Amino acid sequence: MHSRFVLIQTSHAGNVGAVARAMKVMGFDDLVLVAPRWANVLRREETIQRASGANDVLAKARIVDTLDEALDGMDHLCATAMTPRDFGPPTRAPREHFAALLGQSPEVPGAAPPNRPGGVAFLFGSERFGMRNEDVYRCHACLSIPTDPHFGSLNLAAAVQLIAYDWRQALGGFALPPAAPTRPAADAHALAGMLNHLEQALVAVDFLDPAAPKKLMPRLNQLFNRAAPTDEEIHILRGVAKAMLQMADKAKH
Amino acid sequence: MHSRFVLIQTSHAGNVGAVARAMKVMGFDDLVLVAPRWANVLRREETIQRASGANDVLAKARIVDTLDEALDGMDHLCATAMTPRDFGPPTRAPREHFAALLGQSPEVPGAAPPNRPGGVAFLFGSERFGMRNEDVYRCHACLSIPTDPHFGSLNLAAAVQLIAYDWRQALGGFALPPAAPTRPAADAHALAGMLNHLEQALVAVDFLDPAAPKKLMPRLNQLFNRAAPTDEEIHILRGVAKAMLQMADKAKH
Repeated sequence: MHSRFVLIQTSHAGNVGAVARAMKVMGFDDLVLVAPRWANVLRREETIQRASGANDVLAKARIVDTLDEALDGMDHLCATAMTPRDFGPPTRAPREHFAALLGQSPEVPGAAPPNRPGGVAFLFGSERFGMRNEDVYRCHACLSIPTDPHFGSLNLAAAVQLIAYDWRQALGGFALPPAAPTRPAADAHALAGMLNHLEQALVAVDFLDPAAPKKLMPRLNQLFNRAAPTDEEIHILRGVAKAMLQMADKAKH
Repeated sequence: MHSRFVLIQTSHAGNVGAVARAMKVMGFDDLVLVAPRWANVLRREETIQRASGANDVLAKARIVDTLDEALDGMDHLCATAMTPRDFGPPTRAPREHFAALLGQSPEVPGAAPPNRPGGVAFLFGSERFGMRNEDVYRCHACLSIPTDPHFGSLNLAAAVQLIAYDWRQALGGFALPPAAPTRPAADAHALAGMLNHLEQALVAVDFLDPAAPKKLMPRLNQLFNRAAPTDEEIHILRGVAKAMLQMADKAKH
């Protein structure tokens, strides 16, 4: 599915750069600027600085005069607006809407088109005035990012970042970077062996009195159950127990 | 639950301002800076400009020398890092981890503490070097935002924005602003009445030939089923049909 980000009458060059970066980290690269304040915005120093390496997105970006020109090939249009408009499209949280749009959630009335759209455009208004009513009316949905009701002032690039993230996640997401190999927890037998070893060591260092053990070992057992040590960690703990036993043996001879 | 955002050795004042704004839109206000580059970072012009009204977050923010001082009262620590560390905590996507932490998801091994933590801190490293290994090792989880494997360069404030958003959503989220009152779809009877009216009008303007109607009306019926018009919209459409009938009547007399 083709995804496009459309910035309408953006004033700050820095925001255009930050938007390019926000899109690129989420794997999107189709940026269209409608009547930006600066005609040379894609080449301004601030833009390039804030893009921080997303130069291909800037190089590919188009500048057009009207919203119409920005929407070729798109068939589902999402406005972004803080304030719902009378007679406008339904207001939805991004996650809900994306799930409905991709057919992943139970029917949201009016939201699920019969087929997945081929092209989805996300429209962002100017920093100062947001989107014009006429532009919102054209859209199929009005996305509203749920923010603190007392402070809804999202930066333009931050809004693009959140929408791009939710949309990428809805599309299936990126995998996490390969983690360190997972170390499965040792089995209960290995844990019991270690605890037994540790118990001897605790007795040897005169911490545990076998005549009055209280609940020390059950407590340690619970602690290690929660920690779910790996075989390697069991090995380390047994090494500690062994060293305790040896030192105690030395001390007492 | 208390939520804190900790920035370690941040270099750019603008980022500190943008972080304050990113936190505030998601309803968080506890910001701690560990050894920032600028001692006066909370009062710098760039900071205040990028905070864009989140001045209370800046006013409340603390500057400390060491990570230790930043962590009082916190009992669950989330590192944020692009690259997993050997011997570090498990790497997780934020949404998964938050669901596990809040007991909303089936067990994620090792992630769900027996009780919800009272204080959760999110740690962010410096713009250039990220987090130091020693700082990551202290944490219970390493959050990794799933980004394009070929371009994972998230801006610091953008990373804070995404984590703050996911965390706020996991905590229950904010409601959307009150939308225009929902207009329920008209019932099938009203739709059928309108279609009947429209059919007469289409015949009257010589568009529909009653002798060879083809599939026009079933097609329009399907179109209006998909559009699910409200009573008000049915009223508008009936008005159109009425006007067509009147004009046709006028033309033929």
